[in-house]
Amino acid sequence: MSVPLPTMDQIRDAAARIAPYAVLTPVLRNATLDELVGAQLFFKCENLQRGGAFKFRGACNAVWSLSDEEAARGVVTHSSGNHGNALAMAAATRGIPAHVVVPEGAVLAKLQAIEKAGAILHRCAATTAAREAKAAEVQQATGAILVHPYANTQVMAGQATATLELLRQSDGLDMLITPIGGGGLSSGSAIAAHGIDPTIKVFGAEPAGADDTAQSLARGARIDHFTANTVCDGLRTLVGESNLEALRAHRVDVITVTDEESIAAMRELWRSLKLVVEVSSATVFAAVLKQRERFAGKRVGLVLTGGNVDLDALPW
Amino acid sequence: MSVPLPTMDQIRDAAARIAPYAVLTPVLRNATLDELVGAQLFFKCENLQRGGAFKFRGACNAVWSLSDEEAARGVVTHSSGNHGNALAMAAATRGIPAHVVVPEGAVLAKLQAIEKAGAILHRCAATTAAREAKAAEVQQATGAILVHPYANTQVMAGQATATLELLRQSDGLDMLITPIGGGGLSSGSAIAAHGIDPTIKVFGAEPAGADDTAQSLARGARIDHFTANTVCDGLRTLVGESNLEALRAHRVDVITVTDEESIAAMRELWRSLKLVVEVSSATVFAAVLKQRERFAGKRVGLVLTGGNVDLDALPW
Repeated sequence: MSVPLPTMDQIRDAAARIAPYAVLTPVLRNATLDELVGAQLFFKCENLQRGGAFKFRGACNAVWSLSDEEAARGVVTHSSGNHGNALAMAAATRGIPAHVVVPEGAVLAKLQAIEKAGAILHRCAATTAAREAKAAEVQQATGAILVHPYANTQVMAGQATATLELLRQSDGLDMLITPIGGGGLSSGSAIAAHGIDPTIKVFGAEPAGADDTAQSLARGARIDHFTANTVCDGLRTLVGESNLEALRAHRVDVITVTDEESIAAMRELWRSLKLVVEVSSATVFAAVLKQRERFAGKRVGLVLTGGNVDLDALPW
Repeated sequence: MSVPLPTMDQIRDAAARIAPYAVLTPVLRNATLDELVGAQLFFKCENLQRGGAFKFRGACNAVWSLSDEEAARGVVTHSSGNHGNALAMAAATRGIPAHVVVPEGAVLAKLQAIEKAGAILHRCAATTAAREAKAAEVQQATGAILVHPYANTQVMAGQATATLELLRQSDGLDMLITPIGGGGLSSGSAIAAHGIDPTIKVFGAEPAGADDTAQSLARGARIDHFTANTVCDGLRTLVGESNLEALRAHRVDVITVTDEESIAAMRELWRSLKLVVEVSSATVFAAVLKQRERFAGKRVGLVLTGGNVDLDALPW
């Protein structure tokens, strides 16, 4: 699915649109981690966002971009993860129905959270085809608007507002790094960063077990099929076509990290930064640690995307 | 040991003195936890302070309160926990020697952290008498100034700056709650809070297994001997005499919480607030949860004192 990327104007509009609902998350500094890397690190704490992840920004922007007429019909998505929960919360801010299609086998705690946020759950088989079919069925039956987890311009524009804030809060950066999954956050962040300062070097962190973006950039053509093998459950998606193009246009360098490196980075963030972050989020710090010579002496922004972790099953 | 409590002026001076070195820690809000309690909660995140605990404030103020002549002789303390580490870091900011007396059996990771911060370790037997004797010996040999973990006016003044900041950052509070161990933080916080607004109701949270303050206040005389039985390792100390007096004068109400309640509160803070906090710090949230009817509808400040946790041995 290829959708138009957001423009800088759309990202700025999104920032104004979500301001009444989203948390202006803090940017944390840490002397110990600065010393460890030999750089000035600025951690944008989207784990402190509503719902514990940056996804709320995108869902909120999508919900509030609808006309009153559209909004009244409600919204629908197929995601049992952070996006489903984010859309449920965003719909609640506008007082409209949210339908979330959830596959069999989804984590019960996540489903309960989505239901608690006020969404109507629709169960289906655990295949992409079944999810899309069920979402289409709900759309047809209710007239609800589909809000795709990442292949949606307003979702990407909303997500990119985290980077906009980070740049303002840090008073300028030399470098920026975000995780890469579907590529919505990373491409949107590159657009936002370069809209403010075209000299910022943008990086993406990708798990070695889901490195389709790194491979696609290396061979100059998009890989359109692969099997993810990583504990970073937020980053198993194939990068979108337009996202890949944007990453190329903005000269984004992808750094791949092993699961072991991400888990060690996650632990260090918990230990020193005192923050609960997901392993998918820790990829950015793992990447900076792995190639610290590239970051040495620089002002580096790191987007910590989320903190929804099963506290009874820590990966170390 | 009874030492003079800090005045409001001393607390304000401390704030100015430590400003170049201490982190202005954020105050976090959280919609989920507000809803759970039915109040507006303002979490002062001292787990994000240098060294991961509020102790740095007190140590830093004590170190920078010394004359140049005194400072040149160095500082000494007997504490293998957060205060020892805090004093080592504070001494480093002034470039003076720090001596830390550590008992046999202290946690290796803590000792390594103290050494890494640049302190000189002095080992002794694991009794209070042995620790005090060894500290006196170091004092005599080096001329170093003793900086007691809590029975020290400048230490208490520094610690109370967290409350000063919280009140400014939150734009005013109805209520305030801190943990109670030796009573330095709680009495200093009461002085700071009432120096700004005498109508603020101040609470202390104390583990049921170390409730000497609650008992002392109840019977009108200080308990001077007890055996602590609690997982809250930061709160096992007997409350100091002058601290107890101050708590009485400021009408501080003590709420006691069981270890189970503190552990559950700790887990909820990790889960919803996405913060790594110690179980001793979680007592304040446990107390608010336990007596939520007293806090309902109020603006409540909670001082989260630290986040130094063994990530391999979580209490749940």
